[in-house]
Order: sequence, then structure tokens, then C-alpha cells
Amino acid sequence: MAANVEDVIMLLGDSLTQGGWEPNGFAERLAYVYNRKLDVINRGMSGYNTEWIIPIFEQCFATQHEQQHVPKVRILTIWLGANDAATPDTSQHVPRDKYAANLAKLIRMVRDPASPRYSPATKVLLLTPPPVNTHQWRVLREQDGGSLDRNFEATRSYAQAASDVGAAEGVPVVDLWNKVWDACGHVEERLSEYLWDGLHLNQQGYAIVFDEIIKTISTNFPELHYDNLAPVFPLWDRIDLDNVPAALTKRSIFPN
Amino acid sequence: MAANVEDVIMLLGDSLTQGGWEPNGFAERLAYVYNRKLDVINRGMSGYNTEWIIPIFEQCFATQHEQQHVPKVRILTIWLGANDAATPDTSQHVPRDKYAANLAKLIRMVRDPASPRYSPATKVLLLTPPPVNTHQWRVLREQDGGSLDRNFEATRSYAQAASDVGAAEGVPVVDLWNKVWDACGHVEERLSEYLWDGLHLNQQGYAIVFDEIIKTISTNFPELHYDNLAPVFPLWDRIDLDNVPAALTKRSIFPN
Repeated sequence: MAANVEDVIMLLGDSLTQGGWEPNGFAERLAYVYNRKLDVINRGMSGYNTEWIIPIFEQCFATQHEQQHVPKVRILTIWLGANDAATPDTSQHVPRDKYAANLAKLIRMVRDPASPRYSPATKVLLLTPPPVNTHQWRVLREQDGGSLDRNFEATRSYAQAASDVGAAEGVPVVDLWNKVWDACGHVEERLSEYLWDGLHLNQQGYAIVFDEIIKTISTNFPELHYDNLAPVFPLWDRIDLDNVPAALTKRSIFPN
Repeated sequence: MAANVEDVIMLLGDSLTQGGWEPNGFAERLAYVYNRKLDVINRGMSGYNTEWIIPIFEQCFATQHEQQHVPKVRILTIWLGANDAATPDTSQHVPRDKYAANLAKLIRMVRDPASPRYSPATKVLLLTPPPVNTHQWRVLREQDGGSLDRNFEATRSYAQAASDVGAAEGVPVVDLWNKVWDACGHVEERLSEYLWDGLHLNQQGYAIVFDEIIKTISTNFPELHYDNLAPVFPLWDRIDLDNVPAALTKRSIFPN
């Protein structure tokens, strides 16, 4: 790596990821707890499906040759499906099998030793899309002169497909669909406690996302939990003042 | 640039910058409005003074040779002085003249064509440290068994020194000291409306920081205001669907 110094957490996804920079969004909260340890890079593209995100990811994730020059991606979250699961009459729709194949393709781009972007230092987390509150979403769509373009059961089915891909690929799954569904007591109308418009998460929804990501890191990659990483540069009251500037040289985030 | 794709806003500073990742902190708000246009890289180091930050910056900011491989820093905020202005009995204290010289050195590292880190694409903003509420800070220090290590007039004087450096170097200054001082009606006790502990900004304080940074960008580098930049990848409803994946190729953030 040439400069900028810190390795990164890359968040790949759609509007749910893009909105992570809202106050108390999951990107903001990750950036806060990983401050001075890992940078957070948000590659959430509102409205995108897995089909459109593949060429984006190919441009955002360094090839093996390029990896020596850029910060290492230590954690990669892949969170798509909310748009793939749109009704088949929309341009965003991607059939369920194709969606699953695209997720597997994204994962293998990073984890397959034969891939040009193979990156053994990168830990992948796969998130399932949250349930849709069609009662809320229908009202907003109709106010905009459109019609309902999401389906509760379809999103459930796409979330299950994502979980199956994670299991088949050996990648930990953050099963948001079920976590949010459990949180609202399996009552679709009560999803409004976690979704501000029926599709997008509010702060309570993002709290579940953040908590579940951290739990999944703790369980599967405890060495990457923020409490187990050291800051790249020392805390100010630990600087060896007799040895400046050498004491201020970049250090590994992994304690000895 | 090899990958990761977006150019960046780099925030260099002390705890006031580090805290920018708090909800509604200025880093969070910049990341939100510059989403899909510029990434935000927080290089705020709590407790650091200008003396300690120089070797840090040398490691974080690419040399000319390295710059081809890493994202360009389009905007660099330099915001130091809150610790330099600590009382002379502390390890954090840096004499005022040395503080001013260090700020000039940081600026010239980027702007002097003879510097190894010369980067004409980088626009520098210099922020003055905010005023200190010694009434608040003293209570907290004494609770911790310490004594008052900040001085209202010293911080004012350091803020003035930073403004003078900005003027001399031809770099726009975000004069937070005066903006916050004006906001509280020139009454030190009322600084508690903007500082949660007498030294560090709360959400109301960060709102001033964010607003003043955006105003300063609008005035001095309007081409870098977020409204004048295009997203690196197209909005989903503007994707030329007959031309995928070519339509999803990275584009300049500067509209033609």
C-alpha cells in the first residue's frame, strides 16, 4: 500500500448500504468504532441489483496485481436483493436463480484462488435483504403515481436464496430478514418500526444491522472485532516522547 | 489509481476530527452528502498536536510517485491547535510560533511544487480550534484528579495564529473560533451549548463545522461542492440498459 495507511471495510450493496451514512446508520457506526483502525468505504448504489453491481465491483475491488498498491479490504459486506426481488415487470428485477448465481459470483471473485481479484485477507459477510412492508410501500408508490413493485413473499424467498448461497459458499450470513421479522413479532404492519417507508431502514432498523454485523464478526472473525485491533498510530498518552518521530511509525492493527 | 475508485476528502486533525464520525459529526455529514462522489478518510488522532501529526501526515499522504496508485485527495482539512494550546506544563503544549510554523509546513507539504508530496489536485482548508469553556473543562479535569490545562485566551491566540497562517499561505480559513464565539454571544459559559465537556464539540457544534466547511468550499472551490459533482457510477434510473456493462464504467465526478 502506497498511502492513506489504513486497511478498509468495504460495504457493497444497494440503497440500504448507501443509506448507511445516515446518522446512526451502520456505515457511520462502523466508522466510529473502527476509527484509527480500519476505514469504511461505502459502495452502496441506490436502486442497483446484483446484475448491475458486478461490473461496479470489478472496478472497485483491486486485482491481485493492484492489491500491493491499495489498502487491503479486511471485511467485505455484500448486501443485495431488495431490488432483485422487485416484481418481474420492473427493470430492477433479477430472477431468483440468477440472483443466487450473481451472489455466488461476487463471493468467488474474492475467495476463489483462480480469480484475478482473489484476496485471502478479505473476510466476506453476506447479508439478506430485510422484509418489505407492502402496506407502507404501496401508499408511497401510489402517491408517486406508480403501483406496488415489491412483494412480501418474494423478498422472503430471495432472502432464503441468499442464506443458501452463504451456506454453500462457506460465508457467514447476517440473516437480517429473519432478525427484523422476529423483531416485529411476525406482523407485517409492525415493520414500520424498522422501515421508514416500507423498504428502507430507519435508525432502529440500522441498529439491528450494526449489532448483527458485529456479532457475526465476533463469532466468525474475532481477530477483526474492533476491540481486538490496535490503532495504526499510538494513543497520544502512550507516545514514547523520547523517541519521536520513530514512535509514530505506522504499526500493524494486529497486536503481537 | 488502482482500485477503490473514488477520490477522497481527508480530514487531518486531533480529537475534534476523530469525533467527526459521531452521529451528525462533520465526517458523517460529509460522507453522507458526498456519497458516491468522494470517500471520507478520517485522520483525526485524539490528543495529538501539530508536532506529532507531521510524521503521521507524511505516512498518510502519498508522495508524487505513489499518487498514481491511490485515490486523489481532492479536499484536505487541517484542524489542529486545541492540544498545541494546552498549558506549557503539559506534554501536548507546542509554543505558538512553533504551532504556526508546523501548520505552514503541513500546508507546504501539499502545495509547494518542490515538496515530495506536492499535489496540485488537493484543495486545502485550514480550520481554527474552537474556543474553550474553562468553566466546564475545569470541573471534568478536577473530577479526574487533574488541574485545568487549557486557557481561554491561549486558544484565542492560537486560533488567530492559524488564521494568519492561512492568509499568508493563501489557503481558505474556516474560522471556527469566531463562528462558535459569535454563536454563543461572546459569553464563555454559553459555550456549553456547543461543547459537551468544554473542549469537544456536540452535535450543535459540529453543525457549525459542517456548515462552515460547505460554505467555504462553495466560495473557494465551487467545482467541489457536492451538488456540482456527478456520482462515479450512474443513478440506477439513468443506466443505459441497452448498453450494460459499458454504461456502468466509472466516470469523472466533474461534469462536462
